[in-house]
Amino acid sequence: MSQAEEYEEFIEKARDINRFDSISGHLGWDQLTLMPEEGAAARAGILAWLAGKSHSLLVAQDFGGLIEKLENSLETLDDDQMANIREMAKARQKAVLLPLAHVSKAASLPSKAVAIWAKARADADFTSFENTLRELVEVARERISYLRKDGQTPYDVLLEDFEVGMTVADYDLLFEELRQSLVPLLGKIMLAKEKNPGPSIPSTSNFPIPLQDSFCRRVAEKYGFNFSAGRMDISSHPFSAGLWSGDTRFTTRYDEAEPFSCIGAVMHETGHALYEQGLLLEHEYTPRGQAVSLGVHESQSRLWENQIGRSEAFWKIAGNWFRQSFQDCPDWSDEDLHRLINRVDINFIRVEADEVTYNLHVMLRYEVEKAIFNDGMDVSEIPQLWNSLFEEWFGIAIPNDTLGCLQDVHWASLAFGYFPTYTLGNLYSAQLIEKMVIDLDKDLECLISDGEMPLILQWLRENIHSQGKKYEPSKLIEIVTGKPPTPEPFLSYLKRKYSAIYGL
Amino acid sequence: MSQAEEYEEFIEKARDINRFDSISGHLGWDQLTLMPEEGAAARAGILAWLAGKSHSLLVAQDFGGLIEKLENSLETLDDDQMANIREMAKARQKAVLLPLAHVSKAASLPSKAVAIWAKARADADFTSFENTLRELVEVARERISYLRKDGQTPYDVLLEDFEVGMTVADYDLLFEELRQSLVPLLGKIMLAKEKNPGPSIPSTSNFPIPLQDSFCRRVAEKYGFNFSAGRMDISSHPFSAGLWSGDTRFTTRYDEAEPFSCIGAVMHETGHALYEQGLLLEHEYTPRGQAVSLGVHESQSRLWENQIGRSEAFWKIAGNWFRQSFQDCPDWSDEDLHRLINRVDINFIRVEADEVTYNLHVMLRYEVEKAIFNDGMDVSEIPQLWNSLFEEWFGIAIPNDTLGCLQDVHWASLAFGYFPTYTLGNLYSAQLIEKMVIDLDKDLECLISDGEMPLILQWLRENIHSQGKKYEPSKLIEIVTGKPPTPEPFLSYLKRKYSAIYGL
Repeated sequence: MSQAEEYEEFIEKARDINRFDSISGHLGWDQLTLMPEEGAAARAGILAWLAGKSHSLLVAQDFGGLIEKLENSLETLDDDQMANIREMAKARQKAVLLPLAHVSKAASLPSKAVAIWAKARADADFTSFENTLRELVEVARERISYLRKDGQTPYDVLLEDFEVGMTVADYDLLFEELRQSLVPLLGKIMLAKEKNPGPSIPSTSNFPIPLQDSFCRRVAEKYGFNFSAGRMDISSHPFSAGLWSGDTRFTTRYDEAEPFSCIGAVMHETGHALYEQGLLLEHEYTPRGQAVSLGVHESQSRLWENQIGRSEAFWKIAGNWFRQSFQDCPDWSDEDLHRLINRVDINFIRVEADEVTYNLHVMLRYEVEKAIFNDGMDVSEIPQLWNSLFEEWFGIAIPNDTLGCLQDVHWASLAFGYFPTYTLGNLYSAQLIEKMVIDLDKDLECLISDGEMPLILQWLRENIHSQGKKYEPSKLIEIVTGKPPTPEPFLSYLKRKYSAIYGL
Repeated sequence: MSQAEEYEEFIEKARDINRFDSISGHLGWDQLTLMPEEGAAARAGILAWLAGKSHSLLVAQDFGGLIEKLENSLETLDDDQMANIREMAKARQKAVLLPLAHVSKAASLPSKAVAIWAKARADADFTSFENTLRELVEVARERISYLRKDGQTPYDVLLEDFEVGMTVADYDLLFEELRQSLVPLLGKIMLAKEKNPGPSIPSTSNFPIPLQDSFCRRVAEKYGFNFSAGRMDISSHPFSAGLWSGDTRFTTRYDEAEPFSCIGAVMHETGHALYEQGLLLEHEYTPRGQAVSLGVHESQSRLWENQIGRSEAFWKIAGNWFRQSFQDCPDWSDEDLHRLINRVDINFIRVEADEVTYNLHVMLRYEVEKAIFNDGMDVSEIPQLWNSLFEEWFGIAIPNDTLGCLQDVHWASLAFGYFPTYTLGNLYSAQLIEKMVIDLDKDLECLISDGEMPLILQWLRENIHSQGKKYEPSKLIEIVTGKPPTPEPFLSYLKRKYSAIYGL
């Protein structure tokens, strides 16, 4: 068999593995948006079966043999092919260490767990979720026991799943640096707010769901989301899923008393969805055609949510749309709306947090996960640790677990180790914007107010989206921006922005 | 290997085949309800891939070997096991005659074709669908060429796909008998209508979609549909899909000028969906746990739509709901509503047809399909044949193809040979009801007005739903009713009902 034939055989197998995973992705999307409750058992079963199929192909001897052959004779392979081989090899290296029973359990448990979590969250009843959460943690601990390498802490294994190369040591350092800047900044903002609290939402306000829906669709379209190749739906926790080429879906949720939470969620998820819509069809079902990492994914969502969606320039455009949409509401000026969507608040809910407190919410979850996996903390102690950290860092007490440790869907979905990637996304996004404005020779506010949103998207398409998994995530950031990931651009962006808003 | 072990191995393979088919079913449902238009290419690709996977397992030598061994030593197998072996053997017998390329094409072509059909239908432009329809017919002719047995006409091959044992010879005879009764009955009704046309819908009426939606959900719930184990959604052509155990979905469509079409569709699809919800979980992913045939499936839909949903007794219950739901509408009495939902009309659209003309619509499609497959008619001649038959039988001219040969989704879905099963459903349903009222010792109107809908459902659950594919369809009807399928009960039901309504 020639090398070209070997590669063809390898990539067809890789596509089959990814086809099974895409199907799981679609059924997972459906589970969180549409599935009736009694469908959970069958869904868990088919997801376990699909995970098993994918796993079996991945660990198969002949697939391993092909990878080995290709790895040992790379001279005539191009960068794309090498990326596919490298990524499938990495995936296989992990898979061969995992027993099929573990893989099936990990695929099916969330079907059950998400339903139990949703009910517990609605009832603010942690104890009704506790045993399921313990099961989830057990599965994650099992994963750690199979995958842990010399020199790794247990939690490192989970962190690596979501961002290759990042460890507890890295995050500890990074978070400490952030905390040292963010806590004083937050203090100054809170003082400034006492003098000038800015506009607020009257408690009698009503923002009808259909109006929020059409406003948000307008924003997503303005960003460049193609609704002929995607959908926006409702779920209890907003998320995005690049299901198929030509079919990318994201969700939001509505609160009639407060539209900015939904607007922020749509901006965020549209950012994810634009990444998925920018992946290359020619690399369908292969790593080269997939998003590089969660951290980079979050850079896209946070960039469109914050740097663009919470900018002054954007609200000079969207202010009119807003006033046309919600005619019964206070007559907010563009500036009022910009202040409202940037109001810094001690908020219990991460996804509704402003950019200053957001990373503190992430760090809190990081500390809790670290305590579980590196210090052996039992899940029964989660509420107490969560609440005491929150009170220490934010200065107020959590009234119930719906506003505390039950707020996120991640643990029920077995996504332990995911949260820190949000902070990476914040850092990456600022670093990317810094380079983009140099390349485009125009600052971000001007790009937005000059109607050059398509130029922004095009820059991201070229530099990030179309790259797929060609490089590892931190390498990609370094290639695009000329320097390794660093928190500096993010911190200076935050200080600049909030000094202006609050006159610090 | 013991026979028990052989059976275990056989049934696990059968389940895998059906798992692939269930996934295709889910992605097919999604395609018709949610998929954005640019998702069609990827959807076609994955459906072809899934069909190929299922096909490969079905035709695999080792699966054939297992079936053969089990067929040749049936002594210790129970009825359920024998049914599974018989049905998988039948499926395999066909599959081995079909090349993989044909199977993939047949699975993917509808993704493209349905989109083109939907546009052609919206534009009333047959020519824009003609080439695609020719491709579809070609694929069906290919299927015929692979599967046709001695003594079969070409069209028989397609008819058999949807109802085992039914041929052109059978349908010709049956349809002739029906036509001889229905045409004079229709004539008498039309004469009676001239004297007393009954209530009609004012052209200024508006029936808001959310109100139709909640009225229809109430009807579906009253019938016994479990919304915790299913969903109702919107699609351009109403359909039902028993996707997973605990997750059965059906669709409808709305017309703000006319609510009875949507109500009828929901009653019909709920009938299908109740069948799916009544299949046995213990036989999940095996033939024993699947609906026996399209004909019997249509008996369930037509029974709940017509015998129950269009009965006087039902509208004595639903009349109040209707008046509460649509408060701006004419003050129709229960009797008016019963007349309205049973009004016999020369209607262009099959799914909106009354029970008398309905079968003429089916026969028309049957004649067109027969002309295509048995007489070699080219698809370009379809509109002409359709329109001339319609004018001959119904006495009015078709104004455009949206109201003519473009109205149904079936051909775009490659379901040639499906339509006649609707008529079988009508016959079976009348025959089943005849037996049910004997078993329950109460006539149908009394069962309904006494609130004994659950008793009706229970009888159907026991006699039809829970039987799955235990017997072949006509055998099942014979076992349940004590006689082979016959049009007599249906014709006498129709005469009785419409004589009362129109005072014939």
